[in-house]
Amino acid sequence: MISEERLNRQIRFVKEIDRLKQIQRQTLLMDRSRQENSAEHSWHMAVMAILLAETAGARNLDLLQVLKMLLVHDIVEIDAGNTFCYDEDGRQDQHERENAAADRIFGMLPEDQAYGLRKLWEEFEARETPEAQFAAALDRLQPVLHNLFTKGLQWRVHGVKKAQVMTRNRRMEEGAPALWRYARARIEEAVNNGHLFP
Amino acid sequence: MISEERLNRQIRFVKEIDRLKQIQRQTLLMDRSRQENSAEHSWHMAVMAILLAETAGARNLDLLQVLKMLLVHDIVEIDAGNTFCYDEDGRQDQHERENAAADRIFGMLPEDQAYGLRKLWEEFEARETPEAQFAAALDRLQPVLHNLFTKGLQWRVHGVKKAQVMTRNRRMEEGAPALWRYARARIEEAVNNGHLFP
Repeated sequence: MISEERLNRQIRFVKEIDRLKQIQRQTLLMDRSRQENSAEHSWHMAVMAILLAETAGARNLDLLQVLKMLLVHDIVEIDAGNTFCYDEDGRQDQHERENAAADRIFGMLPEDQAYGLRKLWEEFEARETPEAQFAAALDRLQPVLHNLFTKGLQWRVHGVKKAQVMTRNRRMEEGAPALWRYARARIEEAVNNGHLFP
Repeated sequence: MISEERLNRQIRFVKEIDRLKQIQRQTLLMDRSRQENSAEHSWHMAVMAILLAETAGARNLDLLQVLKMLLVHDIVEIDAGNTFCYDEDGRQDQHERENAAADRIFGMLPEDQAYGLRKLWEEFEARETPEAQFAAALDRLQPVLHNLFTKGLQWRVHGVKKAQVMTRNRRMEEGAPALWRYARARIEEAVNNGHLFP
């Protein structure tokens, strides 16, 4: 039977991560009504993973591992904030900030689970396993889709250029080649339609 | 290789379910700043499932199945809205509204995936498998936790009484006995602290 102490730690963590619902991302909702938060972003990608697993480059993908990574990989943002992917300054100390956040937040859990979640986060960040590469591809695709479906509003607001979008998102190919083919074609269209600076 | 037609249908579905981020629940965020939406609620429960799987009544729980159910079970709310669990009138035609929503929304996907997601939703609703019972237990626990950590604000606003909370949440026991023991003790405390009407 699970000890009261163990369950209390787990519930304290459940309470703590509620704060991810307040972490704003640059991405707009598809209807442009507001910015997305990192909790609902994580949900969206997890559903995408279920549907798009068949586009993964790797055979025999461990979908459970993919889902776990996608569900926990943004939790560090509770302390470290969401770093806009085209903010080169913000990205300089991102790893340091997120490492400290992982120590504190995952450290609230019973030791074995703190270790497990940290491992998941590190696997995602390292992008070495097929599961992490596929998860990372979705983490790239999702904001691209939001930009495409909102006529590139945030790209234009932030003065983002096609070359930046291509450089940032090309790595989608290693995890999900079909998604990168799809995204590349849509990015070209966005430039042609004036939704993304050439 | 995945067909363009298939991928286009999947992406249209990904765009459509963005609307779940706009479906408000009665639950408040832990800091009471606003109501929760169903997308971030689904994320929260999925993380809870990873951590609390060990409290499930069943041995050899299929965690992947639990996560899939939790991630998709609220999608019908895009059309059917979120029905407050103590709203007896709203609950009368809930099933009918949600059924029509499932037809339309899951029906946007390629046929095999439409069938797969509908089966997941139906499994969750039927609460017959250990996975569905555990998922349902989390779906009960999460709003109880939010009420407990916000001093019962929404319970008090809606005039909810202890007997209603007990009746509604007792079924937690079939999926996760340890979570029900925990919740029951906290519900008693909430009454003693004046956060829930006796």
